[in-house]
Amino acid sequence: MKSIPIILLGCGGVGRQLLHHIISCRSIHYKQGIVIKVVGVSDSRSLLVSDDIMLTGMEDEFLAAICHAKSAGSPLKSPLNLGHCRLFTEKEAVEKIVATASSLGGTTGLAVVDCSASAETIDVLKHVSSLGSCVILANKKPLTCAIEDFEKLAFHFRRIRFESTVGAGLPVIASVTRLISSGDPISRIVGSLSGTLGYVMSELEDGKAFSEIVRAAKSLGYTEPDPRDDLSGMDIARKGLILARLLGWRINLADIKIESLYPSEFGPDSMSTEDFLAKGLSHLDEKLKERVATASLKGNVLRYVCVIQDLRCNVGIQELPKDSALGRLRGSDNVVEIYSRCYEKSPLVIQGAGAGNDTTAAGVLADIIDLQDLFA
Amino acid sequence: MKSIPIILLGCGGVGRQLLHHIISCRSIHYKQGIVIKVVGVSDSRSLLVSDDIMLTGMEDEFLAAICHAKSAGSPLKSPLNLGHCRLFTEKEAVEKIVATASSLGGTTGLAVVDCSASAETIDVLKHVSSLGSCVILANKKPLTCAIEDFEKLAFHFRRIRFESTVGAGLPVIASVTRLISSGDPISRIVGSLSGTLGYVMSELEDGKAFSEIVRAAKSLGYTEPDPRDDLSGMDIARKGLILARLLGWRINLADIKIESLYPSEFGPDSMSTEDFLAKGLSHLDEKLKERVATASLKGNVLRYVCVIQDLRCNVGIQELPKDSALGRLRGSDNVVEIYSRCYEKSPLVIQGAGAGNDTTAAGVLADIIDLQDLFA
Repeated sequence: MKSIPIILLGCGGVGRQLLHHIISCRSIHYKQGIVIKVVGVSDSRSLLVSDDIMLTGMEDEFLAAICHAKSAGSPLKSPLNLGHCRLFTEKEAVEKIVATASSLGGTTGLAVVDCSASAETIDVLKHVSSLGSCVILANKKPLTCAIEDFEKLAFHFRRIRFESTVGAGLPVIASVTRLISSGDPISRIVGSLSGTLGYVMSELEDGKAFSEIVRAAKSLGYTEPDPRDDLSGMDIARKGLILARLLGWRINLADIKIESLYPSEFGPDSMSTEDFLAKGLSHLDEKLKERVATASLKGNVLRYVCVIQDLRCNVGIQELPKDSALGRLRGSDNVVEIYSRCYEKSPLVIQGAGAGNDTTAAGVLADIIDLQDLFA
Repeated sequence: MKSIPIILLGCGGVGRQLLHHIISCRSIHYKQGIVIKVVGVSDSRSLLVSDDIMLTGMEDEFLAAICHAKSAGSPLKSPLNLGHCRLFTEKEAVEKIVATASSLGGTTGLAVVDCSASAETIDVLKHVSSLGSCVILANKKPLTCAIEDFEKLAFHFRRIRFESTVGAGLPVIASVTRLISSGDPISRIVGSLSGTLGYVMSELEDGKAFSEIVRAAKSLGYTEPDPRDDLSGMDIARKGLILARLLGWRINLADIKIESLYPSEFGPDSMSTEDFLAKGLSHLDEKLKERVATASLKGNVLRYVCVIQDLRCNVGIQELPKDSALGRLRGSDNVVEIYSRCYEKSPLVIQGAGAGNDTTAAGVLADIIDLQDLFA
C-alpha cells in the first residue's frame, strides 16, 4: 500500500467536502493500493496535527473537530476526543507544517493541500515545495501573486497540481498541460469561467433587464453576498492569469485588461450593496440592452469571457457567433475552447459545471491521486 | 535529466507521426528535464534496435529507415547509415523486446508504445508489463481482447496509458479516470466517437440521401476504403468497450449490442465494395429518411452513438434532443457526454477532432510524458 500524508489548509466548504470525499472514497482508493492519511488541518488561526503521523489518518476526527468549531462559530480549538492530536497557534502552525514537510520530504512524501481563499499561504507553500513536498491548490491566490513567486511555487512542476482553480473539476489545466507536453502549440483559449456571469449573459440574451437578472441571481444564491464581487470580473481574471502562466507567459494580474460590468462610481467604496442593488443597477440596463441588440443583428450573442491570445489576456464582454460552443452556452455551465495546431478550425471544447464545493473538492482529490507515483 | 527509452511497435501513419513529434518536441521536453530516446522500432515483420541503448536515441535514423522501407514498399530492413543498429526478424523481435524490458525494467524503465493496428501485440505487451515496463497504446485491439487478457494488461494500471484509443487526443480516458479516482460515480457515458458517422448523421439531418452522403464521404476520403468498415459500428464498439472496462465492467466485445448501418446481406461476404456503393446503399435511403423525419417531429435528431449505462453498452442510432451537446454536433468532431454525481443534470462534455495521425500521435506523446515520474 502507498500512503499519501496530507496537511489541509482551509476548513471552509471545499476543505470540509474534501475530508468527506476522502472518507467516502477509502475503499475505492484501497483497491487502487492507496491510503490517504490526513495528518493535519488548519484554519486561519490554528493547526491541528496528529501526534503520530505514521500511525493513521485522522480524517473523521478532523472533520468532527471542524464541524464542532464551525457550529460553535469559533476557530479550531483544543478538540474533544482528539487524544492523539496537538493544537498549534497561527504562529507555531507554519513552523510545524515546515517541520513536517522536512521530516517526510525524503521518506514518504507530504502533500500540502490549500483549500483556503487566503493570499497568505504562498510563503509556506513555497517553503514546503522547496523541501520536496507536493502542493495541491483549489486556492487561486498563491498562483496569481507576483510572477516571481508563482515561478518559485511552480518550479517543481510535477509536484504541483491546481486543476480546481479553473472550472472546478473540469479537466482544463490537465488538457492544456497535455497539449503543451505533446508539442501542440496553443494559439487561443476562450473561456466562460463564471457560472454566475454565464447565467447573467444567457438571461440578457433572452431580453431580460440586467438589473432584474442580477437581483434574481442574488436571491437564487447564484452570486456572492455582494454581486459586485462577480460583476467586477476579478475572479475570472485570476483564472485567466493561471491559464496564461500555464502557457509560459510571464505576466501579472495588472497586465490583464478587465471590463467590469459596473462603473467605478458604483463600486463598493462609493455605494453600499443595498444601494447598488436598489438604485445603481438599473442605470446599467439600457446600455447592455443596446449591446445585446447590436450583436443580435450580426447573428452574434454577448458572452462574458476570458480571451487568451497573442500574449494578451482580456476579460470582458465579447460578441461571439451564436453557433459556437460559447454562443450556444445556456445557464451556469463553464465552457472553455482551446485552439491549437491539432484543434485549429474546430476547437477542443470542455464544458460542464464549473463551481460548487462537491465538484471543486472532487477535482482536488483527483489531483492528489494523480500525484501518487511521487509517494512511497 | 530524466531519460525515457521507447520501443515503438507500428510504423504506419501514427507511428511515423509520433517519431516526427518526438523530434520536433526535443527542446520543449529538454526544458521539462526529459529526454525521450527511441531505442527500437518494429513493423509487422521486423524490429530495428539500437545497439547501445544507453548511448542515445535514434529517432532521426529510425524515421529515415521507415521512410526508406515504405517508399521501397518493403518492411524495415538492413538500414542504410545505421551502423549502431541491429535488425531482428519477426521471430527474434519479441524475444529482443522482452530482453530489453527485462534489462531496463529495474533501472531506467522502458516504455513500449503500440501504434500498430494488430491484434497480435497483446502477448508481448502483457509480458513487458509484468517485467515493469510502461505500455502506451493507440492500438485498440489489445484492450478489446478477452477480458482476462485485458485485466492482465491493465493490472499495473499506473503504468499503462491509452488516451488515443478513444477520441484521439481528446482527454476522455483521463477525465473518466479522474472522476473515478475522486469517487464521483459515473452513471452514463454517451459518445459520438466516429468522425465519419458524425458527418453522415449531420448530413442526414439536412435531408440528404444516405447513399449520396456515403458516396460523397468516400470520395472526400472520410471513410475507410470499404465504407462498411465505418458503417458496421465495430470500431465504435471497441471504443465503447474500452470505456466500459475503464468503469470496471467485466464485459467483452460480444456483450455489446451493435446496430450496423447496413444489413448482413449487403456485407463484405455477399457483395463487393463497388456493388455495395453502386446498388446496395440506395436500398437503405428510404428507411433512414423516415427515421430522421419521425425524430424531427419530436424535436429530436438522430446520432450514431455509443451509450454506456446500467452495465450495458449499446452502439447504434439514437434519437437525442436537438439542443443537447450531441444533438448540436455538426460535422466530424467527436463528442462525449459524461454524467456523474457532480455532472448530473448537465453532463461533462468533451468535444473536438477525434481522429487524424497528428492528433492521435500527439495524444500518445502526452501519455508518454504523463508517465515520466516512473522513469529514472
